[in-house]
Amino acid sequence: MVNKVINIGLIGLGTVGTGVVNILSEKRDLVSAQLGAELRIKKIADLNIAGSRDLDLKGVQLTTSAKEIISDPEIEIVIELIGGYEPARSFILTALRNGKHVVTANKALLARHWDEIILTAKEQGAEIGFEASVAGGIPLISSLTLGLCANKILSIYGIINGTCNYILTKMAEEGEDFEKVLAEAQAKGFAESDPALDIEGIDSAHKIAILASLSTGQFIKDADIYQEGISRITHRDILYADEEFGLTIKLLGIVRQLDGELDVRVHPTMIPKEHLLSQVKGVFNAVYLVGDSVGPLIFYGQGAGELPTASAVVADVIGIAHNIKNQVAGRVLKVPFDVKERKKIKDITELRTEYYLRLSTLDQPGVLAKVSGILGRYKISLASVIQKERSIKGAVPLVMLTHHAKEANIKKAVQEIDRLSCIKEKSLFVRIERLEEK
Amino acid sequence: MVNKVINIGLIGLGTVGTGVVNILSEKRDLVSAQLGAELRIKKIADLNIAGSRDLDLKGVQLTTSAKEIISDPEIEIVIELIGGYEPARSFILTALRNGKHVVTANKALLARHWDEIILTAKEQGAEIGFEASVAGGIPLISSLTLGLCANKILSIYGIINGTCNYILTKMAEEGEDFEKVLAEAQAKGFAESDPALDIEGIDSAHKIAILASLSTGQFIKDADIYQEGISRITHRDILYADEEFGLTIKLLGIVRQLDGELDVRVHPTMIPKEHLLSQVKGVFNAVYLVGDSVGPLIFYGQGAGELPTASAVVADVIGIAHNIKNQVAGRVLKVPFDVKERKKIKDITELRTEYYLRLSTLDQPGVLAKVSGILGRYKISLASVIQKERSIKGAVPLVMLTHHAKEANIKKAVQEIDRLSCIKEKSLFVRIERLEEK
Repeated sequence: MVNKVINIGLIGLGTVGTGVVNILSEKRDLVSAQLGAELRIKKIADLNIAGSRDLDLKGVQLTTSAKEIISDPEIEIVIELIGGYEPARSFILTALRNGKHVVTANKALLARHWDEIILTAKEQGAEIGFEASVAGGIPLISSLTLGLCANKILSIYGIINGTCNYILTKMAEEGEDFEKVLAEAQAKGFAESDPALDIEGIDSAHKIAILASLSTGQFIKDADIYQEGISRITHRDILYADEEFGLTIKLLGIVRQLDGELDVRVHPTMIPKEHLLSQVKGVFNAVYLVGDSVGPLIFYGQGAGELPTASAVVADVIGIAHNIKNQVAGRVLKVPFDVKERKKIKDITELRTEYYLRLSTLDQPGVLAKVSGILGRYKISLASVIQKERSIKGAVPLVMLTHHAKEANIKKAVQEIDRLSCIKEKSLFVRIERLEEK
Repeated sequence: MVNKVINIGLIGLGTVGTGVVNILSEKRDLVSAQLGAELRIKKIADLNIAGSRDLDLKGVQLTTSAKEIISDPEIEIVIELIGGYEPARSFILTALRNGKHVVTANKALLARHWDEIILTAKEQGAEIGFEASVAGGIPLISSLTLGLCANKILSIYGIINGTCNYILTKMAEEGEDFEKVLAEAQAKGFAESDPALDIEGIDSAHKIAILASLSTGQFIKDADIYQEGISRITHRDILYADEEFGLTIKLLGIVRQLDGELDVRVHPTMIPKEHLLSQVKGVFNAVYLVGDSVGPLIFYGQGAGELPTASAVVADVIGIAHNIKNQVAGRVLKVPFDVKERKKIKDITELRTEYYLRLSTLDQPGVLAKVSGILGRYKISLASVIQKERSIKGAVPLVMLTHHAKEANIKKAVQEIDRLSCIKEKSLFVRIERLEEK
């Protein structure tokens, strides 16, 4: 019995927007039956709306002006899929202030303007859905806010950028270096022509800002988060880590709730190769988290793509539509952003962990003595040293694993080592996480 | 600002009940702050309530009579954790009819009395939460009903019984046979003294009945589901599967939506060893599912235990409490049990898949000719035959992998083969699933 029509306005008809139109069109009858209301896309705004598309757009008004959507009194749910900061931010805020509920996949915007957007939604009694902003179609946001609400989330370790995971996987499988695999990925459309957002860890930082905020209840922004990308990782590092130390390199977003402070960071990380996260290959995403009651959990799936991301957008739309139908929108279970004491985010220099070090040295006596002398002065003790025989362009790789050390000390020691005349190129250090279940 | 108290009644203070009391006690302040209401356990019923327990039960009334809970007009949420069919069924139905919302972890009861319980809840405008009934603390039920609501769930393959997965893992790692590992598991408390519920696939069938019902929208009961346990699997089967065919044996619950019919079954299954489900070890649970929009997903975590299961129970309680607080309980997103056409569940004899066959034959000429003659007559063609040299108690294992064949034919062929005088013990066949992503 369908007696109500809920009008939707869609801003941005790119890949994901097309997926949303397709899913809502294909599932029209199913959704109506479940909802007891009809979901109708009333208007779609896109700057390039004239382009021909193979879409069922009967009865949909097309426009180049998003304002026509956010000011339309008949539209109850606005879907924002244009991405970026402006005009997306203004569209969302205006839509909320005009009494509309909003669904967005815009992680960059949320990671920078969390507080403004969530607090505006709260003031207006409006809902804001953002399941699609992290890990595509994996129902991670709803799990954090609903299914795991009885838990303190002790830690999160996420592979949340498919491009980086694809590149690292290919480097491992094909023994190729970063630049070559990146170029191939760009040719295949798995990486953008300007790849910085992905490979420098920026996109992962946007997403981890969202997960950190949801799991701690305080607004954490991308600017608060240490970010380091994968461009300095070589296939030799992947090989040494695997063969010598039983470790795999993944770009991880990390959130840990420590005593009185938070540890939030994005960087390439070596993890035990027998851990399930190590087995996550190609463009797939996976998030490993530990709750104080539930223990360790893993969520795995496609983190991007037309239909997986649209699946999450439509789930948010259906959830909000249910609440509209039942006249309770804005009053159901909410993101709990109301912690009393804000915990400080630990500076990366304060981190203590194990490190992988890779030095490129001249093949001559006394090098190891000099290097280990410097490490010793910074209280860095070694768990393992491997002097590789093979000379690469006149230099020999010297690979080490440290015991737990302080990041500030590692940084200073490496700077000092890099000034030695026997060191041929900038040294690399990679943090290690053992992913213990607590 | 806490201005409302929501009273809870707990029936059954066993392991999970104790976990629920502990979580609600520890998280009292956090929950109150998020909810704007206080959750209070008013009464606990248990037949053995006199037993001393190390629990914070200040202000809680203890009773041996569940009726005191389900007839208490102040109690709004009843948690049923006694398990089994009766009196659990009567308690739940009476509680619903008395206007209470119910949370339960009782998969056996749901798998048999789904329709009665869900329809009673619907009539009464009451909520029924059962996140804890499948896969412990993994937020699978909420993901199916909310996060994935834009998807048709094409297939589900679940490792949903921790005891069986523990036994199969130990058999593989230690090269021991089923009986010995089962006895060890019983000694360690990982298996019940009467293990039939777990090892015969009955518990997995209860859980897959719930997942099948939720994902198809029609009530599917345990009696509708083909069930086969792991007791005939030997460590040699695990070894041959691994070394010869690259396959791992897992007890899987399976749901597939086919054209016009459903495929729902529980049995030991060989799956590719490079698939992530193969890496799920010990008591862990994992569910691999494929949605038509979202593609493949995996959920992984602890499927049992005091706190993981209690985490799911408390999540349901908090969700319902939110709705009570907002005066919308019973009106939010519901299990969509209202499909028009009921699809038939395919009989197991109609299954077509690849099979692993293990025969124990006399070491004499002509055996393979006789066996393959019978298989040929039933139109079963072989992909691989391995005649193991090693004689075990005067018999030689003959191991085969078939191409796709019909289960009815495999069954008849094996019966006929087992009547041959050169066959020394009952043959075993194991179904193979390739877990393709569609």
